[in-house]
Amino acid sequence: MTRSFVPTRLKLTRPVPSDIDIAQSAEIKPILQVAEEAGILPEELELYGPYKAKVKLEILERLKDVPDGKYVDVTAITPTPLGEGKTTTTVGLSQALGACLGKKVFTCIRQPSQGPTFGIKGGAAGGGYSQIIPMEDFNLHLTGDIHAITAANNLLAAAIDARIFHEADVTDDAKLFNALCPPDKQGSRRFSPSMLRRLKKLGIDKTDPNTLTPEERSRFARLDIDPASITWRRVIDTNDRYLREIEVGLGPEEKGRSRRTGFDITVASEIMAILALTTSLADMRERLGRMVIGTNKKGEAITAEDLGVAGALTVLMKDAIKPNLMQTLEGTPALVHAGPFANIAHGQSSILADRIALKLVGPEGYVVTESGFGADIGMEKFMDIKCRYSGLVPQVVVMVATVRALKMHGGGPKVVAGKPLAAEYTDENLDLLKKGIPNMERHIHNALKYGVNVVVAVNSFSTDTPAEVELVRRAALDAGAMDAIVSTHWMDGGEGAKALAKAVVAAAEKPSHFRFLYPLEQSIPEKLEIIAREIYGADGIDILPEAQAKIDLYTRLGFAGLPICMAKTHLSFTTDPNIKGAPTGFRVPIRDVRVSAGAGFLYPLLGEMRTMPGLPTRPVFYDVDLDLETGKVVGLF
Amino acid sequence: MTRSFVPTRLKLTRPVPSDIDIAQSAEIKPILQVAEEAGILPEELELYGPYKAKVKLEILERLKDVPDGKYVDVTAITPTPLGEGKTTTTVGLSQALGACLGKKVFTCIRQPSQGPTFGIKGGAAGGGYSQIIPMEDFNLHLTGDIHAITAANNLLAAAIDARIFHEADVTDDAKLFNALCPPDKQGSRRFSPSMLRRLKKLGIDKTDPNTLTPEERSRFARLDIDPASITWRRVIDTNDRYLREIEVGLGPEEKGRSRRTGFDITVASEIMAILALTTSLADMRERLGRMVIGTNKKGEAITAEDLGVAGALTVLMKDAIKPNLMQTLEGTPALVHAGPFANIAHGQSSILADRIALKLVGPEGYVVTESGFGADIGMEKFMDIKCRYSGLVPQVVVMVATVRALKMHGGGPKVVAGKPLAAEYTDENLDLLKKGIPNMERHIHNALKYGVNVVVAVNSFSTDTPAEVELVRRAALDAGAMDAIVSTHWMDGGEGAKALAKAVVAAAEKPSHFRFLYPLEQSIPEKLEIIAREIYGADGIDILPEAQAKIDLYTRLGFAGLPICMAKTHLSFTTDPNIKGAPTGFRVPIRDVRVSAGAGFLYPLLGEMRTMPGLPTRPVFYDVDLDLETGKVVGLF
Repeated sequence: MTRSFVPTRLKLTRPVPSDIDIAQSAEIKPILQVAEEAGILPEELELYGPYKAKVKLEILERLKDVPDGKYVDVTAITPTPLGEGKTTTTVGLSQALGACLGKKVFTCIRQPSQGPTFGIKGGAAGGGYSQIIPMEDFNLHLTGDIHAITAANNLLAAAIDARIFHEADVTDDAKLFNALCPPDKQGSRRFSPSMLRRLKKLGIDKTDPNTLTPEERSRFARLDIDPASITWRRVIDTNDRYLREIEVGLGPEEKGRSRRTGFDITVASEIMAILALTTSLADMRERLGRMVIGTNKKGEAITAEDLGVAGALTVLMKDAIKPNLMQTLEGTPALVHAGPFANIAHGQSSILADRIALKLVGPEGYVVTESGFGADIGMEKFMDIKCRYSGLVPQVVVMVATVRALKMHGGGPKVVAGKPLAAEYTDENLDLLKKGIPNMERHIHNALKYGVNVVVAVNSFSTDTPAEVELVRRAALDAGAMDAIVSTHWMDGGEGAKALAKAVVAAAEKPSHFRFLYPLEQSIPEKLEIIAREIYGADGIDILPEAQAKIDLYTRLGFAGLPICMAKTHLSFTTDPNIKGAPTGFRVPIRDVRVSAGAGFLYPLLGEMRTMPGLPTRPVFYDVDLDLETGKVVGLF
Repeated sequence: MTRSFVPTRLKLTRPVPSDIDIAQSAEIKPILQVAEEAGILPEELELYGPYKAKVKLEILERLKDVPDGKYVDVTAITPTPLGEGKTTTTVGLSQALGACLGKKVFTCIRQPSQGPTFGIKGGAAGGGYSQIIPMEDFNLHLTGDIHAITAANNLLAAAIDARIFHEADVTDDAKLFNALCPPDKQGSRRFSPSMLRRLKKLGIDKTDPNTLTPEERSRFARLDIDPASITWRRVIDTNDRYLREIEVGLGPEEKGRSRRTGFDITVASEIMAILALTTSLADMRERLGRMVIGTNKKGEAITAEDLGVAGALTVLMKDAIKPNLMQTLEGTPALVHAGPFANIAHGQSSILADRIALKLVGPEGYVVTESGFGADIGMEKFMDIKCRYSGLVPQVVVMVATVRALKMHGGGPKVVAGKPLAAEYTDENLDLLKKGIPNMERHIHNALKYGVNVVVAVNSFSTDTPAEVELVRRAALDAGAMDAIVSTHWMDGGEGAKALAKAVVAAAEKPSHFRFLYPLEQSIPEKLEIIAREIYGADGIDILPEAQAKIDLYTRLGFAGLPICMAKTHLSFTTDPNIKGAPTGFRVPIRDVRVSAGAGFLYPLLGEMRTMPGLPTRPVFYDVDLDLETGKVVGLF
C-alpha cells in the first residue's frame, strides 16, 4: 500500500550558498508523495498547499498495534550564544539515516516563533544542506498553529478582565447568577456543560439551576478574582519590547479599573506547552480547563474552566493539535509541531508527533527529535517531563559538541552574536580546547544517568583542525560515550552524517535501561535539589522566601506532585551565564516558583527570564521582501 | 475541461434547525470538485484540508481575455441592530441562480472577525438554509488570513516603538547611520532595497552608502518620529475591551519612555482594507509601503517604507492575498476574502475575489457580492471606493428590506439584540409600516443615482402578513425599483429565492449606466458635502476645527485626491443612531478626518466609532465546545 522511499538527491555547491538559496533551489516532493512513502493514508492527511499537510490523530488508532521505532534525542553541550547546530544535526542525521542508510526515519522538530525571524536570529529550519523545506513556511505562518495559540491565550485573557469588570458592576449575587444563567422565554434556566464542570469542582451536585440555594448561586456566580494574583498574560508572536509591561483598561468605558500586566511572545504561552505535552483531544480539553490564571480573594486557584472558556479554547486549538508534515532537503519526512520556550516551559516538540512517527517508522525505524538548549536543560526536561507524560522510551542521546564551544568553556574570549570570532576560535588551540572538555564530560555523565546510550556528534566547522576534532572524539569516548563522530552535514548533507548515523544505529541496538532522575512523589524541594546536584553539579539549592511561599501555596493546592521545569540560563551549568566550563562548589538560588497546572509542571525561576524579545536598531526585516516577479521570499537569512 | 455543476440537494427540516445543525448535517462536496465545476485548474488551487482552498492569482492571467460576468451588489435599507439578512440573501440568491436556474454563479463574501464569534454575535456565514460551509471554518481561523494581518500590523507597530527607542539611545546621527547600514568585513556598506526606496523619497539619488554626505546620512537615518503623532495602533482578533486604551513601555528596560496607545480588533487594521482593495502582489507591496503611521517632528508623513518593514509585511501577507474557495449549502462556489470594518474602512470583500469570480462565471454568469451596513454606507463605498479601484462595473443592486426594519423606521419601539420583539413587529401593522417606507425609498433613489438597476428583496419572516409584504413590494416599485420580490431563502434555501433570482437576471439584461457620485478631483469638503446631501439627505456639513486642521494637513501632504470613506453609524441616515426613517433638515458634523494612505481613502469621523468590542457578562463562548467523540464543534450558535 505504501510507495517505497525515493531520496531527493542533493546537488552540492561550493562555497555553500545561503540557507534560503539552498532551500529555494532544492527539489521538493509533493507532500502527498512524502506521506505515501511514510505510510500515511490520504484520508489521514489534510493538505495545506502542495508541500505541507496536517496529520490526523486517527492514525494512532490505526497503528496502535505496531511496535515503536527507536527514539533518538539530539541535545548539546552548553552552547555559545550562536548555538552549536542541534537542529542542523537533527536534520542531517535524519537525512543520513533515510537517504544514505535506507532506514525508515522521521524528524520531529519544533515550530519556531515568527518573532525572531524578523528580529536578529533569522530562521530555525536547520541550515546549509540539512534543512526542513519549504523553509519560508517553516519560519512563517506554517499552518497557523501559533496563531491559534495566540487566539486561545488572548481569549482567556479577555475573559478574565471582562469577568472582573462585570462582577464589579453587578454587586448583587442573585443578579450576577441571573446574567450568567438567564431564564428563557418559558422561565426555565440551564447550565452549559462548562458550568456543570465548575459546579462539580465546587462540590455542588446539582444540574438544575432552579434548585441551587442562594448561597450556592453566589459561590457559583462570583469568581471574585483577585486582580493582584493574576499570572495569565497576553501573548503576541512579534518581538515587541514595548508590550513587556503595560497598563490596560485606561479607556473611559473601563471606569478607572486599570491593571498592570504585559505581553509575552506566543511560544511562551502555557497553551504552547500544553500543545507539546498533550496526548489526545480529550486530554487537551482537560489540560486547557486546568490552567490556573490566578486566585480568588480567598487564595483559591481560578481556572479557565471556572471562566467557562475551556471549551472555546479547545475549539480554537482543534486543528493545531494535528502535527504538520514537511520534508528534509533529501526528501525524508518531518513532523513539525509545537515549540514551547525552553526555560519557563520544557522546550520540546510535541508528544503526538513523536508517537505518530514512532508508529510510522515501526520497530526497524528511527525517530530523531531535538530538545531545546543544552543537555542540562533540554535533555533533562525531555527525560523527566516529556517522556514521563508520553510513556515513550528513548534509546540514544546524540550529544552535539563543537570545538568552538569547548574552547569557550576552556576560557576563550567571549562569543557575541553578530561580532567576528576571536582568533582563538579559528586557529588551532589544543590547550584551550582541552581545558573546555569537562563541560562535555559532565553532559555525557548526565545523559548516562538516564540509562540511555550516548553518541557524541562533533559538528565540524572548516576552521577545526584534525588534531582538535580528534581530541574531542577521544575525550568523549573516555567519558563514556558509546561512540564519537565528526559530522559535516551542514556542508555535505546526509552524506556528511553517514558515520554518525551508523553510530546511532549501533547504539540503538545496544541495551539501554531508561530511568527518570527523580520520582514525582518527592517533595518540591527534594526534586529541585536532585536536579541541581545531579545535573548541574551544584552543592545544593537556596530557596528564597518568595519561592518558599509559592512552594507552600502549591503544596496546599495539590500541585506538589508535578514534575519540575527549571527556568535557568542555557549558557552555563550555573545560574550565571558567564560561568563556563564545568563549575563546582556553587549553589542554585530558587527565586520564585510558578505553576503551569494545565501543561503539568512547576517552573522554578533561577534568574530573570525574558519572555518577550525586542528588535535591534537594524532588524532582519530590512532585508526581507517578496520578489514580485517570482513570488519568492528574499532576504530571510 | 470543466466538470458540469451538480447542485447539492437540500433536505429541508421543519421547524428550521439551528444554523450549526443545518451546516453540520449538510452534504458537502470536496473542494476539488467545487473548483473543477467552477473552471479552476488543480494547479491554480492550494488546498487547506478537503473543504477549503486558496485560489492563486495566476488564474487572472489565464482568464484575462474572458469577458466579465454580471456584477450584483447586495445591500440593505437602514437596518435594526439585529441586521436584516444581507448575507443570508447574498447566499440564498446565489443558491437560486446556480442550483435552481442553472446559471454560473459565484458568491463573494467577507471573512468575519473571530472576536464576535465568542462574544455576542455568533457567526456570519449566512443562516438557515442559506449558508457558506463549513461554517466552523468560516467563522474561526479559515486559512489564517486575519492572523496574517495581525502579524503584519503588529510587526509594524513593534518597529515604530523600537525605532523611537533606539533613536533616543543613539543621539549621534553618524552612529545611527552606522547601525542601520554597517560596514561588512571588507569595510563596504550596502543599502537594502527598502532603504533605496526611502532614499528616493528623500530625493537622494545615490545607491552607494559611502557617497552620502553627513547631512544626507542624518536625513536618511533619523526618522525623528513624533510619538504624539502616531496613529498606528496594535491589533488583536479578540474582543478585549481592556486593550482599548493602554500605556506601553512601562518595563524597566524601556527606561521610562512609555506611551499611550491601544489595540483595535484586527479587521479594523488598515492592512485589512488593503487586502480588500489591492489588485496584485506588486500593488499590495506599494500600498503597504505607503501606509502612514504618523509624522516626524517637522510634520512630514512617516510610512512603513521609511521604517524598512514593508517588504516583510508583504511576505507575511503573501498567502493572505489569495482568495479562499468554499461552497454554499447547495454546492455553488463562494470566494471568502477580506473583511474590513464598514465604518473606519470600506466594508467590502476583496476586489481580487470579485475579479476572479467575474472571469470564472464569464459573460453569461453572475457574481453576487455584499457590501457592509446599510446602502448609505456600504453601497456608497462599494460604488465610490471599491468599484473605482477595481474598474469593475455593477449592473444590479439588490436592496434587502424587511417589514421589521420598516416598522422601526415608521416609529416602532426600540429593537434591542437579545430582547424579545414588541408586538408591533409580530402583529400586522400597516400604518406603522407605511410610515417607515420613506427609508427604503431614499435608499432606492440613492442606488439609482449610480445608474444601476435596483431589485428589492423583501426578506420575509414568518410573522409578516401578505398585506404587509405587498405594501412593501408596491412601494419599492413606485420608488423606481425594477422589481420587488418576497424571498424565503432562510427557510427554503435557493428555492425560496428563485423569483428573486429571476428578477435579478431580468434586471441584469436591462441597460445600466454606471457612474460615480463624485469625481476625485473635487476638494475634500466638496466630496464630503456631496455624500452628505445626495446620499444622507442632509442640508450640509459642519467641519469642526480638528477636522479642518486635518483637511489642511492632508491636502498639504497630497492626499486630497483620495476617495472618501465615511465613518458613520449604520443605524440612521444621520449621525445619530436614534433618528430613524428618512429624516431631512439635519446637518452632518465632521469631527475629525484620518487617512488610510495605503488602502487609499480618507475617513472622516462623524461620531464615536468603536474599534474594539467587548465581552458581555455571559459570552457566547460558554456554549462552545468540542464534542470529543466526533470532533465536531458544538454551541457555535
